[in-house]
Parts: sequence; C-alpha cells; structure tokens
Amino acid sequence: MAEPGSDALFLAASAFFETLQADIVDALERLDGGGRFRRDDWTRDDPGNDRGLPALRGRGRTCVLEGGAVLERGGVAFTDIRGRFGSEEFARSMPGDGLEFAATGLSLVLHPRSPHIPTVHCNYRRLVRGGTGWFGGGADLTPNYVDRQDIAHFRRTLRQVCLDHADVVRAEDLERACDQYFYLGHRGETRGVGGLFFDHRADDPDRMWAFVQAAGRAFLPAWLPIAERHQARPWTDAERQWQLLRRGRYVEFNLVWDRGTLFGLRTGGRIESILMSMPAHAAWAYDHAPEPGSPEAEMLGVLRSGVPGQWLA
Amino acid sequence: MAEPGSDALFLAASAFFETLQADIVDALERLDGGGRFRRDDWTRDDPGNDRGLPALRGRGRTCVLEGGAVLERGGVAFTDIRGRFGSEEFARSMPGDGLEFAATGLSLVLHPRSPHIPTVHCNYRRLVRGGTGWFGGGADLTPNYVDRQDIAHFRRTLRQVCLDHADVVRAEDLERACDQYFYLGHRGETRGVGGLFFDHRADDPDRMWAFVQAAGRAFLPAWLPIAERHQARPWTDAERQWQLLRRGRYVEFNLVWDRGTLFGLRTGGRIESILMSMPAHAAWAYDHAPEPGSPEAEMLGVLRSGVPGQWLA
Repeated sequence: MAEPGSDALFLAASAFFETLQADIVDALERLDGGGRFRRDDWTRDDPGNDRGLPALRGRGRTCVLEGGAVLERGGVAFTDIRGRFGSEEFARSMPGDGLEFAATGLSLVLHPRSPHIPTVHCNYRRLVRGGTGWFGGGADLTPNYVDRQDIAHFRRTLRQVCLDHADVVRAEDLERACDQYFYLGHRGETRGVGGLFFDHRADDPDRMWAFVQAAGRAFLPAWLPIAERHQARPWTDAERQWQLLRRGRYVEFNLVWDRGTLFGLRTGGRIESILMSMPAHAAWAYDHAPEPGSPEAEMLGVLRSGVPGQWLA
Repeated sequence: MAEPGSDALFLAASAFFETLQADIVDALERLDGGGRFRRDDWTRDDPGNDRGLPALRGRGRTCVLEGGAVLERGGVAFTDIRGRFGSEEFARSMPGDGLEFAATGLSLVLHPRSPHIPTVHCNYRRLVRGGTGWFGGGADLTPNYVDRQDIAHFRRTLRQVCLDHADVVRAEDLERACDQYFYLGHRGETRGVGGLFFDHRADDPDRMWAFVQAAGRAFLPAWLPIAERHQARPWTDAERQWQLLRRGRYVEFNLVWDRGTLFGLRTGGRIESILMSMPAHAAWAYDHAPEPGSPEAEMLGVLRSGVPGQWLA
C-alpha cells in the first residue's frame, strides 16, 4: 500500500486547492479595495505524543485579512499534511484503516464589516487514511437579515453545480445535510440559510473530483455578487449590534458543534489557522429577543424553521 | 431509597445558595452604583426525550446585570432541579447509581468594564444521583494584567478557607486542581491565575458542607476589594483591546473545555443561564503577540507558565 498522500489524485487535489486559494485571495483583495491579506506560509514537522497528538508534517499557507474596508476579518487557508496517529483509538475518528493519514484542503471564512453582507464559509478537502480516500466539504451562508435575492442566488449557484454533476451528487441531499450539520442544537437554530455539505465520499473518485473542483470554483460567483450588491449600503448602530449578537452564535457553533474545529483543537492542529473562523468582534446579551415583526425577528424565524431555504424550492 | 434532593443536607444547601445569591447580588449592586440586576425567576417541568434530554423539573433565579458602571456584564444564578435521565448511557456522566438526580447550586461570572478589574467566576453545588451525594465547586480569577497584590489577596483569602477546614480539604490540592481544570489545552494557557477547584467530594458530608459554606461566603471578601481598588482607574484603548482579546480566550475555554457548560448545553440546561458566562463583547485577532517586555506579555507569560500562582507560595 502506498503512503497516504502520495497518489496522483491527492497530489492533484492539493495543487488545485493551492491555486484556488490564490484566485480567491486575489478576488477578495479586489473586492475589498484597501485591505490586503497577510500571507503566512508555514511548515510543520512534529513528532506527536502519547497523549494522542498525531505526528504531523506538512505545509500550508494561511491568508488573513483584518481591518479591511469590506472584510472586517477573513481567512483563506490551504493545508497539505501527512500524519500518523499514535494509536488505533485516536485513528478511529477517521474512516479507513491503519495509522497513517494525509489531508489537503481549502478552508475559508469571511466576516464582512457590513451587517448587510452575509458571513460565508466554504471548505473542500481530500483525506486519505491507509488505503481509503474520500472527499468532503461544503459552503454555507450566514446572513444577518433575510434578503431573498441573496439567499436564492447563493443557493441556486451551488445547486447548479450539483445539477451539473447529477451523476455523483443529489442537490437535495447535500442541501439537507447542510441544514442538518450547521445546526446549533442548544439554540434550536441553524447557523445560516444553507448551502451544501457532504463528507466521507469515498465512492466514484473521478466524478467526485470533478464535482469538488466545480464546487470550489463556484464559491466566488456564489458570494461575490452579494457582497458587491451591499457594500455601499450604510448601516445603523442597531444593525451593527444585531450583527455582533449573530456572530456570538457563529462562535457558539464553531466552538461547541463543529467537528472539524474540535478535532483540530484537540489533535494539535494549527490553532491560528483553525480559529481564523472567529469574528474580529462578537457580542452576547441576556435573553435577547428581537421586536416582533422586525427584520431581526424575520431572520430568527428563518433560522428557527430548521429548513432555512425551504421557501426557495 | 429517598428521592434525590429530598434529604436535609440537599434542602439546606439549596436554601444556603439562594440566600448567598441574594447577598452577593446586593453587594454587587452597591459596588456598581448605577447598574441593577435583572432578576429572572424561572420554573421548568420538561418531560425529556429519547435523544438524551433528561426529564427536568425545578426552579431557579438568574440575576444578570448588563451595561453597569463597573460590571459590563455579570450573572449570578441559583438553581434547584430534580431530573431523571432517559437511560443509563446518559446517566453515566455522573457518579452514583440509578436514573434520578438532583442538583442545586450557585454560579457566578462577572466581566467588569475596566481592563484593570479581573474577570471572576465562582460556583458551588450539591449533586445527588441515587443514594450518592457530593459537593463540587471553586472560584478562579482571570485578570488582564499581573497585579501581584490582587492575585495574592484573592488566592490567600480562598487559601485561608481551606486552612480553616484542613480536616476535610488540602489547600494545595484544590489550588493545583484549579490550575489544571481552568486550562486551554489548545493554547497551552491557563484561563487565569488560579483559585480553588474540587469536584465529586462525596466523603465526609458534614465537614464538606461547612467548608462549602465558608468558601461561598469568601467570594465577596476575595474579589470586592480588588474591584474597589481599581474602579476609578482610567484605561486606554490599547488596554481595552487586550481585554477583549483575553475575553475571546475566556469564550474559548467555556465553550471548548468547560465540562459544566458542555454538559448543560447538550442535556437541555437553561441556555441563557449557562451562557450568562459569556462576556458582552469579545475579540479575536490573527496570531496576536504582545510586545516583548510589555505588561500584556507579562500576563501571557504567567498564563503560559502552567502554575500561575506558583510565585505566591
């Protein structure tokens, strides 16, 4: 059995994610106008330890923009690592067999300054453990206000990618998985208004690979037009405060429920790359309830429906 | 076997925690001057469900002050509940036997407005599952700057309580347990500069009960003088920004590592009472490193030492 991460598909995926990162960073800098991403190249070669940290070696580039005109904080990370779990017990968190694994991916979270531009996340990845390789990923939109045009544009752009690859994915399955995954159980709210989510797709690697590339390339056309449409629109202090409270929920999801974040934090992942998903500022208030009939209450109603994009179908 | 929560010790503990809450709320309002706690009385009677939420009935009072002169956000919660786990699998998170349990306690987190006044937490509780009852609790101080006088005062006040009850607790054990419990594994930092922590003390109930009352009553003398000493002191924007970043770490600890928070969020606890521990505002910044030799770097050095109060001994 070849070493995980040495096969042609893994190498092609890694090269694709690195190029996609560069393209997205360029496009986001053009959008922002003033802000520039800090490009942080890193390598690591850690021996692991007997408390469960796997041995890890590899490299990555974490690009972060803070204090931009459009992006208050945003990160776009590329990773390419090989690892070895210290024991079967820790390896069990992944499908496949054996202790050796490899992972490469692109991960992105953008927290815009304007409450009218939705926060957005996407992540596409190729993982291999022993002889088993699979794709996972998705994208989801987290607006502060219900703008039907935005939500429809984002979801339909991603749905079209699924329809173009109907030989390997079913749009409704990936959309339902997104609503189910990005869910704050303790709040009874979805994190946002949906998108796509899939994981552990070890079947049909050639078709999945074509789909993953198309989905990755669909991020910019799915989100950029929304940001451009709202970037000149002013906002009030009350809208800003609502945005900060919603970001508190984003923090709650990522730290309490997101499997990827928790796996990374507990297995020696690179903290600053993982937590680039945190907003620059977030707020909490006791028992906050928006005024009935307000735009804020409308947003909360959609998030509490459990099927945030249902009315688009 | 009597129903958990019907014994004299549990009833006395519940009455004590309720009185202690009222005393602390009064004292904090006097400190704050302007701000008043919202007193939120609640009852619950939930049937539970087959996905693991226990049946719960009981009552509590959650007192929250937001936007005060001294306290930017603070909560003091009293709880008295009886429950029944849906299965042995979920009950296993607690010592004891059977599905019936009871819990009563006082829990407090204060996030002062001034970066010079430390955030503080304390929690004392009595739990019973089946025929096994135990005490748990502790208090810990989370300053933004190293003020040796503050840290010494807080730790020595609590240490004295342990020395006064040396027949049932050892100060150094509870202090070490505090440093170990309030630890952000992913950051390699303690949350703060120590205090006391203990859990599952089912032995020697009469002496433990005397200790718990003394520790609970020691909260005000341990923290109030620190707040009073700094409340008139001005601060800079840079000190405020450092405070917000440290609060980001507080959020990370509570949502990623705190067993009580996670147990509550996943088992149907009252969300607003659990998350009163969140600050009003928190911030994150990529790869933030304080300037070498700065007061911020001094603080970080103490938190990364793993033994934040060692130099006090």
